[in-house]
Amino acid sequence: MKKYCFGADIGGTTVKFGLFDQDGIVLDKWEIPTRTENEGVAILPDMAASIKEKIKEHGLNMEEIAGVGVDVPGPISDDGIVPHTANLGWGYKEVTRELTELTGLPSKAGNDANVAALGEMWIGGGKGHKNVLMITLGTGVGGGIVVDGKILTGAHGAGGEIGHIHVDDEIQDCCGCGNQGCLEQFASATGIARMGREILEGTEQPSVMRGQDMSAKLVFDSVKEGDELAIQVAERFGSYLGKALAGMTAVLDPEIIVIGGGVSKAGDILLEYVRKYYQPCAFKSTKETPFALAELGNDAGIYGCAKLILG
Amino acid sequence: MKKYCFGADIGGTTVKFGLFDQDGIVLDKWEIPTRTENEGVAILPDMAASIKEKIKEHGLNMEEIAGVGVDVPGPISDDGIVPHTANLGWGYKEVTRELTELTGLPSKAGNDANVAALGEMWIGGGKGHKNVLMITLGTGVGGGIVVDGKILTGAHGAGGEIGHIHVDDEIQDCCGCGNQGCLEQFASATGIARMGREILEGTEQPSVMRGQDMSAKLVFDSVKEGDELAIQVAERFGSYLGKALAGMTAVLDPEIIVIGGGVSKAGDILLEYVRKYYQPCAFKSTKETPFALAELGNDAGIYGCAKLILG
Repeated sequence: MKKYCFGADIGGTTVKFGLFDQDGIVLDKWEIPTRTENEGVAILPDMAASIKEKIKEHGLNMEEIAGVGVDVPGPISDDGIVPHTANLGWGYKEVTRELTELTGLPSKAGNDANVAALGEMWIGGGKGHKNVLMITLGTGVGGGIVVDGKILTGAHGAGGEIGHIHVDDEIQDCCGCGNQGCLEQFASATGIARMGREILEGTEQPSVMRGQDMSAKLVFDSVKEGDELAIQVAERFGSYLGKALAGMTAVLDPEIIVIGGGVSKAGDILLEYVRKYYQPCAFKSTKETPFALAELGNDAGIYGCAKLILG
Repeated sequence: MKKYCFGADIGGTTVKFGLFDQDGIVLDKWEIPTRTENEGVAILPDMAASIKEKIKEHGLNMEEIAGVGVDVPGPISDDGIVPHTANLGWGYKEVTRELTELTGLPSKAGNDANVAALGEMWIGGGKGHKNVLMITLGTGVGGGIVVDGKILTGAHGAGGEIGHIHVDDEIQDCCGCGNQGCLEQFASATGIARMGREILEGTEQPSVMRGQDMSAKLVFDSVKEGDELAIQVAERFGSYLGKALAGMTAVLDPEIIVIGGGVSKAGDILLEYVRKYYQPCAFKSTKETPFALAELGNDAGIYGCAKLILG
């Protein structure tokens, strides 16, 4: 009888771990540094050692452990193979095969944004649903799509790369991906801050944002104070994101749209600006598709990893 | 041992049938009128009678028949329930349950555009793939998405309604769906003809299209003759469709994009204009995603219906 599983969210700085029971209760949570030097050769052995230590510490029986779910910050195939993950120093790596050899436990893997969506579906903002569109508004814009309870990985692991939907023909700057006009350039924390700076530079109009360090947080805090220029930035953000989400729901028709990442901490006011532009552009049967804020924060990864194993 | 199955593509004018073996070979193909009067009460009984007649005609044994797959021109749930299908006169209808009662055979159902995508994946332009994005450019723009061999139906049966992705903020006309700026308004036969008329009205420049009935076919035939105004229409068409497809591949990352419908008869020249705008806007790992033309024409529906049953 399987009673437990491990989730391991591999980031560029730390690996976050969780020990879960079958119902998604976290029994232990810890992290270790990610040693990316020497092409990240130590990462998986470090993880295996840490897992073995916890097995001993909690007096677990190997037969009771269903496996180890992991996520990585980059594309990974459904059979756990990474072609190249710059953030971890990895070239080609058979992640799940190696981890199973090192731990003696079954392993499954996914991309971090996709796995976070699975976690939010299981225990977070998308709880109770099987078809979830999650968008993460952080330094960049990531996404994860869950169809009928399963991650949509895609042919090249690019399923859910919704930050790179083309939304604008005018912008001259390049996106991190090399294209121009990606959603990420307008809906990420970086993009919102850039739009904030641009709007202040383009006018003499007073604003509470002047003289402060520009950030997405400053913009939405200023919106709450009724600052007119901040409201213009929020409108622009809402227009790009709302219309792009409307397009995505015409493709995917999810049960719920979950918005996470640092920018989403602005809360309900952010949803208001997104919905305002989403609603008129959404296909009729998806106009009332609910929006929710993500609930698991930085733990979405370990929850999703556990769900990979628990199925 | 199951050897055969039926596919039935229910349209507003006729129901098209196919009798298939397990390998997708059509053994018989026929059609009957769709009697939509009296809220379409005769449609399913007419179909059942026609199927029974064919079973007798071919001397089939009921035990050898795997079932009847059907598609309908509108949303339908995965368990075969239609909320309302205007084209057929139907209100709420439990399509598969009724058909099974009438025929004594198992039944599965799907939306026509989605089922056509499944057919193209099985035997047509998407053959050999399990993840297919199909777009149908006809009077309107329809679509069907196959993920890991299964139709993406969505929460309200609106999965693959890619004709209603919002792509333009300027247009004043309304789309058939009630919104403004849908892809369908620029990439359908109707939309291409409208753009053709607009461009002729806006200039005195000579064009082989002048004095002829405007249509998508006339536009692409004129492009082949090097007509400058026709080329401008094709560029506009390619820009809207190519960018929208790039956005969709960032979401879905399909193995192949299949383009069907009447407009696709223009052939490779149409793909050229779409690819030209697709490529720069597509996310890096999807820039080389192949395009193919649909191959099954009006038979895509019956093939897809058969595949619903054969799994």
